[in-house]
Amino acid sequence: MTSAEVYLKLENLQKTGSFKPRGAYYAMWKKFKEGVRWFVAASSGNHAQGVAYAAKLLGAKATIVMPKYAPITKVVATQGYGAEVILHGETFDDAYEKALQLVEEGAYFVHPFNDYDVIAGQGTIGLEIIEDLPNVDVVVVPVGGGGLISGISIAVKSRNPHVKVIGVQPKGAPAAYLSYKEGKLVKVERINTIADGVAIKRPGDKTLAIMRELVDDIVLVDDFEIARAVFLLLERGKLVAEPAGALAVAAILSGKVDVKGKRVVAVVSGGNVDMSLLATIIRRGLFLEGRNVRIRGLLPDRPGQLKRVVDVIAEFGFNIVTIEHVRSNPLVHPGMAEVELEIEVPNREAALRMLDKLKERGIMFKLLHPGEWLEARGVH
Amino acid sequence: MTSAEVYLKLENLQKTGSFKPRGAYYAMWKKFKEGVRWFVAASSGNHAQGVAYAAKLLGAKATIVMPKYAPITKVVATQGYGAEVILHGETFDDAYEKALQLVEEGAYFVHPFNDYDVIAGQGTIGLEIIEDLPNVDVVVVPVGGGGLISGISIAVKSRNPHVKVIGVQPKGAPAAYLSYKEGKLVKVERINTIADGVAIKRPGDKTLAIMRELVDDIVLVDDFEIARAVFLLLERGKLVAEPAGALAVAAILSGKVDVKGKRVVAVVSGGNVDMSLLATIIRRGLFLEGRNVRIRGLLPDRPGQLKRVVDVIAEFGFNIVTIEHVRSNPLVHPGMAEVELEIEVPNREAALRMLDKLKERGIMFKLLHPGEWLEARGVH
Repeated sequence: MTSAEVYLKLENLQKTGSFKPRGAYYAMWKKFKEGVRWFVAASSGNHAQGVAYAAKLLGAKATIVMPKYAPITKVVATQGYGAEVILHGETFDDAYEKALQLVEEGAYFVHPFNDYDVIAGQGTIGLEIIEDLPNVDVVVVPVGGGGLISGISIAVKSRNPHVKVIGVQPKGAPAAYLSYKEGKLVKVERINTIADGVAIKRPGDKTLAIMRELVDDIVLVDDFEIARAVFLLLERGKLVAEPAGALAVAAILSGKVDVKGKRVVAVVSGGNVDMSLLATIIRRGLFLEGRNVRIRGLLPDRPGQLKRVVDVIAEFGFNIVTIEHVRSNPLVHPGMAEVELEIEVPNREAALRMLDKLKERGIMFKLLHPGEWLEARGVH
Repeated sequence: MTSAEVYLKLENLQKTGSFKPRGAYYAMWKKFKEGVRWFVAASSGNHAQGVAYAAKLLGAKATIVMPKYAPITKVVATQGYGAEVILHGETFDDAYEKALQLVEEGAYFVHPFNDYDVIAGQGTIGLEIIEDLPNVDVVVVPVGGGGLISGISIAVKSRNPHVKVIGVQPKGAPAAYLSYKEGKLVKVERINTIADGVAIKRPGDKTLAIMRELVDDIVLVDDFEIARAVFLLLERGKLVAEPAGALAVAAILSGKVDVKGKRVVAVVSGGNVDMSLLATIIRRGLFLEGRNVRIRGLLPDRPGQLKRVVDVIAEFGFNIVTIEHVRSNPLVHPGMAEVELEIEVPNREAALRMLDKLKERGIMFKLLHPGEWLEARGVH
């Protein structure tokens, strides 16, 4: 698929489901040695669980502040590591303010990325990559605030400066990408991506400086490319990656990184994806791969008409997922019913052959492309 | 969750997505040394890909016969390993007949389980388990025809006769279970389970004899228990297991195997699950865990009524998945509309608190249990 030798570094199988405990533990262990016994973080994501888990290992107290509407699964998972969870405010900024308040009361604030010790901890991934695969050519890394790629690039390049390190961000949350390209901290106000794990408004000054010095390039992928990567990792890799965790694979699959003939490591940085979202990504993946299609047409509103359609589908051995048969749409000619079916097919070409067969029998249906499907509903 | 130390043997991450290449390769390699250059199998499942992949490694020809309506993904995957795929007949028995015809033409038939060399190949899993975890107490293994558990139990018990080996079958396909319990080959005519990878009508005479001698017990799990195990492996383990591959985990989670305080290995035998089925299992898993609920009630068919319901849901911070608002149901009192919502909630108790709040405001909705949900639709 890529004409390259691609290895996956599976941080989704790491404790807590992401790479986060590496940096959190190292930074907190150093502070613990200095006498700190209470840590605080503001996060409803992987960082929360990383800090909670690290505190548990150290035997320290962790308080995690999350916005009030944080997903309950994240709250429960974080509490599961023994951390205290405070739900505060509507937004992440509110939670952050609350966390700073706790710092005044004596807690140590663990930054998710803009901290040299956190960066050093994430760097252990780079050491492991070089240890396992000394002759690697390219390492591709998801980027949010830049802590992960900073640590990896320092570790990898100190061992072998010829290895290329490429970062990947989502198009809908390109703060580190823009900052890297423009050479100054850029804040992105509007963020819109399924890759919530890297949906960060601004990278750190420390991480930006390291990325500018050591990272060879940062590229962007869109949510469709991310969803396809998650789908491929599931179906072929038998692995659950969260959207942010699949960024590197998405960049390689969509040709955003030149890997031809090379030995490439894609860091799969996490696997904490909401199960409802995963189900949605699977259904979308089946559409993007042309293995589920939607077809639509009008039928005379008489007994036996739908059967004629269903018969053809059965002749082709295809599986019907849903049928919508609407006779009450006031926009449709009276006496006709609007019918839309979702069908599992081998591929889009096979679906077109089936439509030809329907046509032969006088039934005019069309294949809906995702755009058309939205348009047919008046959504643009 | 189990009061035990549970290890997973991840054959879903094996080449071709299941343990099958182990046995196929060893059996075929022996025949290849004797001069055989053409192998045939009748299978649309994991065995097909195991034989195809083994033939590719050996540089031999493989012909795989599948029934005409075999899933196209299986056909493509098998062809992807260089095998010739023949689609023949309506059922597996038809495909088997065709395969025997090819044997007359000179091909060697690779049996999926009732073959000592195939069994020996699967046994390598047992050797690896003992090597990695010499002090294991119990090994739990999915059972279809019995090849996998036969190989594992020979290997494990020859190294350490004190290790218990427990088999697991689905309630809907209990042929090996019944044969094991009754001490003779029992054929099950009607098979009904989501665990298609072990949906076998009858075990082999060789595997039955080995199981009777070495396997300590075989237990049954139902499809709900299997679905929950697949869901748990996905959400917590970040791993895709096919339903048959999750049997051992299902048995441990549902308390069918006594593991308390023990060191247990669950063999996750494969990960080749149809992606549509996986999406369905996720949705079902969310229901079984009480994290998605359906509620249903009647509202006066006047503007603003639905908003009152939606407002309460928003107050609780819950997420609406679907709304069905039907005013045309002739069974419902005129002037009323029937409304059913699917909602993401933290748990069933939280959903009940929300229903209490609706009640306070004079809106009577009820929580639908899966059975009721079917009943409400006249399905029993």
